[in-house]
Amino acid sequence: MKGVIGTRAPGQPIVDLTHAVPPQDVRTGAIILRHAAPWFPKGTVHVAVVDPGVGSERTPLCIETDAALFVGPDNGLLTLAAPRAARRRTVALADLRFHLVPTSATFHGRDVFAPVAAALATGTSPTDLGPPADVAVELEWTEPVTTGRVVLGVVAYVDTFGNLVTNVPGDAVTGSATIEIGGTNLGALRRTYADVAAGEIVAVVGSWGLVEIAVRNGSAAATLGAAPGSPVRILAT
Amino acid sequence: MKGVIGTRAPGQPIVDLTHAVPPQDVRTGAIILRHAAPWFPKGTVHVAVVDPGVGSERTPLCIETDAALFVGPDNGLLTLAAPRAARRRTVALADLRFHLVPTSATFHGRDVFAPVAAALATGTSPTDLGPPADVAVELEWTEPVTTGRVVLGVVAYVDTFGNLVTNVPGDAVTGSATIEIGGTNLGALRRTYADVAAGEIVAVVGSWGLVEIAVRNGSAAATLGAAPGSPVRILAT
Amino acid sequence: MKGVIGTRAPGQPIVDLTHAVPPQDVRTGAIILRHAAPWFPKGTVHVAVVDPGVGSERTPLCIETDAALFVGPDNGLLTLAAPRAARRRTVALADLRFHLVPTSATFHGRDVFAPVAAALATGTSPTDLGPPADVAVELEWTEPVTTGRVVLGVVAYVDTFGNLVTNVPGDAVTGSATIEIGGTNLGALRRTYADVAAGEIVAVVGSWGLVEIAVRNGSAAATLGAAPGSPVRILAT
Repeated sequence: MKGVIGTRAPGQPIVDLTHAVPPQDVRTGAIILRHAAPWFPKGTVHVAVVDPGVGSERTPLCIETDAALFVGPDNGLLTLAAPRAARRRTVALADLRFHLVPTSATFHGRDVFAPVAAALATGTSPTDLGPPADVAVELEWTEPVTTGRVVLGVVAYVDTFGNLVTNVPGDAVTGSATIEIGGTNLGALRRTYADVAAGEIVAVVGSWGLVEIAVRNGSAAATLGAAPGSPVRILAT
Repeated sequence: MKGVIGTRAPGQPIVDLTHAVPPQDVRTGAIILRHAAPWFPKGTVHVAVVDPGVGSERTPLCIETDAALFVGPDNGLLTLAAPRAARRRTVALADLRFHLVPTSATFHGRDVFAPVAAALATGTSPTDLGPPADVAVELEWTEPVTTGRVVLGVVAYVDTFGNLVTNVPGDAVTGSATIEIGGTNLGALRRTYADVAAGEIVAVVGSWGLVEIAVRNGSAAATLGAAPGSPVRILAT
Repeated sequence: MKGVIGTRAPGQPIVDLTHAVPPQDVRTGAIILRHAAPWFPKGTVHVAVVDPGVGSERTPLCIETDAALFVGPDNGLLTLAAPRAARRRTVALADLRFHLVPTSATFHGRDVFAPVAAALATGTSPTDLGPPADVAVELEWTEPVTTGRVVLGVVAYVDTFGNLVTNVPGDAVTGSATIEIGGTNLGALRRTYADVAAGEIVAVVGSWGLVEIAVRNGSAAATLGAAPGSPVRILAT
């Protein structure tokens, strides 16, 4: 992919966001893209490839928002970073002039997404890439549910340190509320990992603005046996 | 290596191809370089370091082809990407003006290959780097053997998904031929992974143009217990 | 971090040094930075983040030397690459104009160190970033101890190949001295890994100029059960 981009868009800087998405895990890729993309320059072309349906009928897409351009498969991967409300335009990547031809059936990253990204980076308009399209597969960012004094959320993502990133926004947790996971009450939100001793469990507002459960200098995922989908309860007092 | 290149060739873009070659596995490095290099811009300088014989008598080389320049040890690493027929010129990296001096005996990547690559990237001719040389260690790309209606190949490479990339070109497989590995007949070639259900074994033509055996959303290497060298049979009907 | 740097310092090349420091292992990060930084261009901005105390009272720092600028937490991470004797100026990163605001309490890499690095890369003087500061946490590079004909050192670092990098400078080992680790005498220093047969243990002067114990085509850490801190003896004869 870098070779194709370097050939078709010489001099354009290329940055690796992550190569640590588990194989075929579209949702994890979508979550990482959602939380990283806002920090990149306006107009950045984001190319994302977690693509178990490559070569099948799923459409290759470009989604344009006010902030950026997203290129990848129509399998949900782009839809948490470029949700419905943020979309300015969606096109199907149908015009073969912007693809490598012949196109392999197994690696559209190299043959479709990379050359299209290079075209966008060198000034091609998304409207030139193909006709308007609807997004077929939408992932939804699950919002936590509030019932009385209880906010019920889930672990959305486990990072490389074993920290459990939940779907509960930090500002949904009032000062005296306590956080519960797997029957363990962690007490109130702390400001940072270092507010507890090494090996202790702590809940903080992480860098994505979401409640995050960590073990200082350890892995909360291992300590608590938690994973994406594990329920988390916030109890206001 | 990036520090040395950045010092001697400021502003030249540097791209990481892979850091996932197993230690000392020259052949795997050579196979990856062979299939990635053609996608890079004409004149790209490819620096490759899988170098268990560093500091011994093996010669550091630059091989020039019509497409690119290859810099690395004379241990076969460059020879699948720059095979005999494609070579325009081979030189031994003998001129110490282009090396870091003193040169360590254990990391020619930093002390020889990186500064030589920087010199090439900034316009130095290969002929300035040292005298013409012969390649001492040649790896051979094993071609499959056809006997009557049977093509006998091998697994050449296992990728990070556990897909088994064989040495059989996709166009060697006629429409109704079936593919066999380890006593399992996979039936005819399919177009892409998504042509079978999750967990099923499938044979496709992969992004390198070679027959590739995969488990959809799984690892064919684990499922089939196969590895580089495992035999594969194509049976025309 | 790359998004923030790309936004605030467009066009500045960004290079990944390593992502393989074990979580929270400040000392390993400091050792890698110490031995890699000298190879980068004069004036390079090195941003380092191994930061278990993020958001606590530890100060974010910029240390300037004659060779480079180092940005990161005051937890020792920068102090082996920029030791006391090499420091020209140290400042606390107090001026919020150069930070992302609001600043998260858990990821100063993105919110403090990256934007400060971008400011430095685009010409901001360290003195603009905040007031002069003292370094609170200093790591020390343990020097080996010489007693008569014996030099006593330790394993300082284990690299990704399992090679044991000691704290003993290569020039502290005279020609006929022998190297001992864990009761095994390795004989005299060799020039390079390839001076012994595959699977054999060898001591060489590695690319950092330090005595390094390796198993050719294998892992010395696994073979010898050694780790950082394991003692090493050099016996002059």
